[in-house]
Amino acid sequence: MTDELILEPLTASAFAPYGDVLDASGEPDKLINAGFCARFHNRARVEFIDGAAGISIFEAQCRALPYALTLLERHPEGSQAFIPMSQDPFAVIVAQDDHGKPAHPRAFITAPGQGVNYLRGVWHGVLLPLSGTGLFAVVDRIGDGANLEEYILPAPLMVRAP
Amino acid sequence: MTDELILEPLTASAFAPYGDVLDASGEPDKLINAGFCARFHNRARVEFIDGAAGISIFEAQCRALPYALTLLERHPEGSQAFIPMSQDPFAVIVAQDDHGKPAHPRAFITAPGQGVNYLRGVWHGVLLPLSGTGLFAVVDRIGDGANLEEYILPAPLMVRAP
Repeated sequence: MTDELILEPLTASAFAPYGDVLDASGEPDKLINAGFCARFHNRARVEFIDGAAGISIFEAQCRALPYALTLLERHPEGSQAFIPMSQDPFAVIVAQDDHGKPAHPRAFITAPGQGVNYLRGVWHGVLLPLSGTGLFAVVDRIGDGANLEEYILPAPLMVRAP
Repeated sequence: MTDELILEPLTASAFAPYGDVLDASGEPDKLINAGFCARFHNRARVEFIDGAAGISIFEAQCRALPYALTLLERHPEGSQAFIPMSQDPFAVIVAQDDHGKPAHPRAFITAPGQGVNYLRGVWHGVLLPLSGTGLFAVVDRIGDGANLEEYILPAPLMVRAP
């Protein structure tokens, strides 16, 4: 791994290998409520093994940049979506998998109105609000078992603003 | 039905017969991420018949008060959660069921940091942001069939601020 990560703008195409950007981009799939509401339908590749979808609320402390990344984690049995309940930005760190270990990490920063859904089993950092309320709705697997693998980096990776 | 509804503050106890308030109230169930994040676990009574949970994005136009309520709807095959992606308030209208028709409607207004989950089959109004972005993540049933019943009120019901 390199020794620093520069935050990139979060785009659907850059993020596609890791998950879904949850936002109102592109054409809506349907107009509902007599035209008052646009529905962007089924935008997350949710997947739950031996469990079911649930909705939890996370309240996280804000972090400052540069952020020293020391831990990546993944959930082998389910996708995990983070929906910010404010317009504040958060950092989204993901990595590829190389024989059971994270490799080639990338860091993104959200724009207002963007959430993310990590695909099942994708390495990612913890929730990193950068300002604001730190309040998120999380759609992930509810079920038995730990559903968690953690990887401690051999040396911290500094995550920096562009 | 009465001919007007006065918005009430949204509380978990008042809303319990209709669904769940999704917020960070009470004690968290778990501290995660080395204490940096509080998890309020599995706060929604999600239920999906012949389908699965999905995440969609709704972008709704803001409405002004008083709002003339003319339509209530329900989804017989699934719960439906509305998670605001901003701190702006929205109105939440629900009703009891009386032999297949809505009865005894009530109207609530959210505080910042509150979303809602309508239980499967509960009569409710359409999405009613009162200011701000009108952007919501919606967790509802993805599956075949309309999963929608609508009821047109015999006369509009005026929804007013307190």
